[in-house]
Amino acid sequence: MILDKVNSPSDLKNLSLNELNTLADEIRELIIKKVNTTGGHMGPNLGIIETTIALHYVFNSPVDKIVFDVSHQCYPHKILTGRKEGFTNPELYHKYTGYTAPEESMHDIFKVGHTSTSVSLATGLAKARDLTGGKENIIALIGDGSLSGGEALEGLDNAAVLDSNMIVVVNDNDMSIAENYGGLYKNLQELKDSDGKCECNFFKSLGFDYIYVAEGNNIEKLIEAFKRVKDTNHPVVVHLHTLKGHGLAVAEENKEAFHWILPGTLDKKEEPAPVQSENYVSITTDYILNKAEKDPSIIAISPATPGAYGFTPEFRKKLGKQYLDVGIAEEHAVAAASAMAKYGAKPILAILSSFVQRTYDQLSQDLCLNNSPVTILVHWGALSNGDATHLGSFDIPLICNIPNMVYLAPTSKEEYLKMLDWSVEQKDFPVAIRVPFGNFVSTGIEDNTDYSILNKFKVEEQGSEVAILGLGNFFHLAKDVKDELKAKTGINATLINPRFITGIDEELLNSLKDSHKVVITLEDGQVDGGFGEKISRYFGKSDIKVLNFGGKKEFTDRVPLEELYQRYHLTKELIVDDIKKCL
Amino acid sequence: MILDKVNSPSDLKNLSLNELNTLADEIRELIIKKVNTTGGHMGPNLGIIETTIALHYVFNSPVDKIVFDVSHQCYPHKILTGRKEGFTNPELYHKYTGYTAPEESMHDIFKVGHTSTSVSLATGLAKARDLTGGKENIIALIGDGSLSGGEALEGLDNAAVLDSNMIVVVNDNDMSIAENYGGLYKNLQELKDSDGKCECNFFKSLGFDYIYVAEGNNIEKLIEAFKRVKDTNHPVVVHLHTLKGHGLAVAEENKEAFHWILPGTLDKKEEPAPVQSENYVSITTDYILNKAEKDPSIIAISPATPGAYGFTPEFRKKLGKQYLDVGIAEEHAVAAASAMAKYGAKPILAILSSFVQRTYDQLSQDLCLNNSPVTILVHWGALSNGDATHLGSFDIPLICNIPNMVYLAPTSKEEYLKMLDWSVEQKDFPVAIRVPFGNFVSTGIEDNTDYSILNKFKVEEQGSEVAILGLGNFFHLAKDVKDELKAKTGINATLINPRFITGIDEELLNSLKDSHKVVITLEDGQVDGGFGEKISRYFGKSDIKVLNFGGKKEFTDRVPLEELYQRYHLTKELIVDDIKKCL
Repeated sequence: MILDKVNSPSDLKNLSLNELNTLADEIRELIIKKVNTTGGHMGPNLGIIETTIALHYVFNSPVDKIVFDVSHQCYPHKILTGRKEGFTNPELYHKYTGYTAPEESMHDIFKVGHTSTSVSLATGLAKARDLTGGKENIIALIGDGSLSGGEALEGLDNAAVLDSNMIVVVNDNDMSIAENYGGLYKNLQELKDSDGKCECNFFKSLGFDYIYVAEGNNIEKLIEAFKRVKDTNHPVVVHLHTLKGHGLAVAEENKEAFHWILPGTLDKKEEPAPVQSENYVSITTDYILNKAEKDPSIIAISPATPGAYGFTPEFRKKLGKQYLDVGIAEEHAVAAASAMAKYGAKPILAILSSFVQRTYDQLSQDLCLNNSPVTILVHWGALSNGDATHLGSFDIPLICNIPNMVYLAPTSKEEYLKMLDWSVEQKDFPVAIRVPFGNFVSTGIEDNTDYSILNKFKVEEQGSEVAILGLGNFFHLAKDVKDELKAKTGINATLINPRFITGIDEELLNSLKDSHKVVITLEDGQVDGGFGEKISRYFGKSDIKVLNFGGKKEFTDRVPLEELYQRYHLTKELIVDDIKKCL
Repeated sequence: MILDKVNSPSDLKNLSLNELNTLADEIRELIIKKVNTTGGHMGPNLGIIETTIALHYVFNSPVDKIVFDVSHQCYPHKILTGRKEGFTNPELYHKYTGYTAPEESMHDIFKVGHTSTSVSLATGLAKARDLTGGKENIIALIGDGSLSGGEALEGLDNAAVLDSNMIVVVNDNDMSIAENYGGLYKNLQELKDSDGKCECNFFKSLGFDYIYVAEGNNIEKLIEAFKRVKDTNHPVVVHLHTLKGHGLAVAEENKEAFHWILPGTLDKKEEPAPVQSENYVSITTDYILNKAEKDPSIIAISPATPGAYGFTPEFRKKLGKQYLDVGIAEEHAVAAASAMAKYGAKPILAILSSFVQRTYDQLSQDLCLNNSPVTILVHWGALSNGDATHLGSFDIPLICNIPNMVYLAPTSKEEYLKMLDWSVEQKDFPVAIRVPFGNFVSTGIEDNTDYSILNKFKVEEQGSEVAILGLGNFFHLAKDVKDELKAKTGINATLINPRFITGIDEELLNSLKDSHKVVITLEDGQVDGGFGEKISRYFGKSDIKVLNFGGKKEFTDRVPLEELYQRYHLTKELIVDDIKKCL
């Protein structure tokens, strides 16, 4: 294997073109095998192998600095920068993260996982280089899908006026996760259609020099292009037309499905049968389809990650113009949804907990200050064993402290659907719903709550001495705690389902004072700034003791949930121990 | 007066061009007089009078919908839409807000005050219109300065692919608040230099149809242009070259100084002498200038509002390449600063509390996840009597719940400068400093604290029974409360200056348990999600009573501070009353 000789980028420099091509094949094989075993980003990595080889052949990392956007396309880079064992040895498949990570290698400049950051980050490096007399190349590697994000566009506008070296490599594989959306992509298409020569060029309009590489998976052409821009004294865009999933036919043909795959996807003989059982995603899409058919003012909106919400190609097709994927443009999504609601439409915006972070100002100013009746579905809001870049534990502190917002935490199918329908039909409040994450629960009991009466908590079981407020995902933990407490101490605790995250039920809380000594709160997310602290504040001047359970303020990186639950005292045993200390 | 006959936009339709021109002069005179009396946005409004008249002459508001960006240029619009009394009658000068406000008029679609939102909002209106069969014109009116913001760029990318009516009027007056910065502006200049005909056109590259109006203050030309695009069936940009401050010579000549003026500015015979007394802005700029001279790796960064931080033209000139105004691009500013720090430079980023909201995800992902040693100076963080769009009460909940961040609240010149210098020189943490707002305090006593020992609160005066934690701006209120409590009850309270917002001093808090019954927290901002709740959480399982004082979770709109302080119990008398109830 050629790869045996490659332990760092410098080992590429003496390889022949033939050897580099062979190396690409070897890397491709490793990635296919590894990703099919562990799951992960397939298409983006297969499309970028040749680019990565050519970059490391021409430039001199880590002196020259390559900044990856999103970095879910960094597997070839990891293989070439001393981490190939994570791909050659199945026992080490989980050793390295799926994103760039400075703690792993000096060839990784930043820890990233959100899109659209590379150009700004690279511009900052270039500015600091110029300030301190450095001369190295600064390269941002960004996919076409990421270009539509506000941070990327701000970055491009700023990068273009650097009076020094700045190389933006645009990896244009014709796709975001799903189809691209926006005027920019028409321009990219014109550029590709005209071999980079069409009159109106988005990048040139910003002031970039521009080079087009039609064969973006051809190492020779890539080396040629990168050599042309190496040590440039001004900002230049190198626009590569690459093939997402390159070299794996099924991935080339099914670009969206093979953007990120589950383990074993390639081993399946046929299309897996659609999952028949209900889950929170399926009941959401069923609700939207059903509702939209009857009401033409319903519109489902997704900022670029439709798969996470069950917004499949089929779903999108069925909704037609009642579906809008705005591309990676979370800020625009929230502002546009607010305007749609003001006009009288009924927008339902789905977004991941980690990506809603992009929209704080839009939630505050465009949405809540204007009190627009938008429904926002926050998915994957929960403590997670995932990468530090994609944690779902911050949405409660982020959203619940914004005035006018109503943030709801359902605990079952019935509650969720009732809240969703209430939200869609009402005209008084911006509403976010934390879509339950984890086990699907159906009580079989219709929820008749009128959610327009805000901040009414629900007493599920009346008891005494201890009251347990189990928010959303953790309501079921609250039930377990109640049972455990009964078993261990005989105490029959009061079980409360708060349902509202953005306000407290003062009447109910006040009524607890008579017959309760301890109130505990459980929330599936960071405690700091979240729900429980508001309960602590409320009881601050009373004799009631309050314990807030939830995540600690920290970025965790692929820590198993069991370990997090131990660390944060989120098991029924540990919680009951803590309660006992207060009694 | 022509204006006497104009009570709504429909009254314009029968006026002759001559009358419209006279009307413009009348409006100009009113605005100059009113703004010079009350203070406010002068240049933007003087530049947009003709555009506003032409828009309302050609289009049919409120059926056709005009969405203002930032909306600090809406005075002529207010005058034409039934609110002229707020400009003709000095007694009513304060009746209307300086921004669009739907509660004032059906001609105002949104409440806005942050930049770069109009295109997304208009796109949402257009989408809802298309969904529900409407046919009216949707117009976004956006200044050139606002175009560089991520939300605006995301909006343009999305607006361009609407298959229906969408009119983006770009009011290009060659200026943001200060000079524009970014590649986009070079393109706007080329467009202006070529009478809109240059080959590379940013807007066309996104897919917009494009019309250029060189005489952007000529009503006849404007009417002609707007008539051309009225009822268009596709997205079009109308690029106007206007003159900021049009018709007021001193404003035309001093565009930055006359963007927003203090009352009476025009009456001053000569340039006011520079303020000699120290304040938190002056000691900041003195520090930066002094430091930057000795250390070439220092760089001061401002996202477009340099005046608020004392980054005057003179300051900028002195710093040379050690100053960077990235334009309205807060997201980029934070990400680029993070990268500069990673490279080894020492970035100091100044931003307003209200605008830091734009950067939550960049603070979290680009900055804190990467633990980059950037110094962020948060100005105007305080409860405020200002517009709902520019409140400074949300930065503590926003910033203090992000992992890894160190958020500091100095209470005097000496503390502030020590914290600032520590932050700039250290390499371990992303640091934000809430620049004190309000009275300037100098203790005359050097601060020798080592701030690298995080979360050490300072006991300023040891007492018993009651402990008062006075954060930042409210430390001085805490002192007053201590005195009042002594006078009213004889209690000698413990006075604590927390200094750290992002963590609690458990050792100190624990030590309070022995001899204190009540702990109170005072913070100059929203309580929900803020500092005090963390203290309540800490003491939740103890016998200590805790009271959190600060702002309520609400958007307040031009409410006098005295009224807010009464409402939130933020006077020494009300606080002592509340404490007494707990004793």
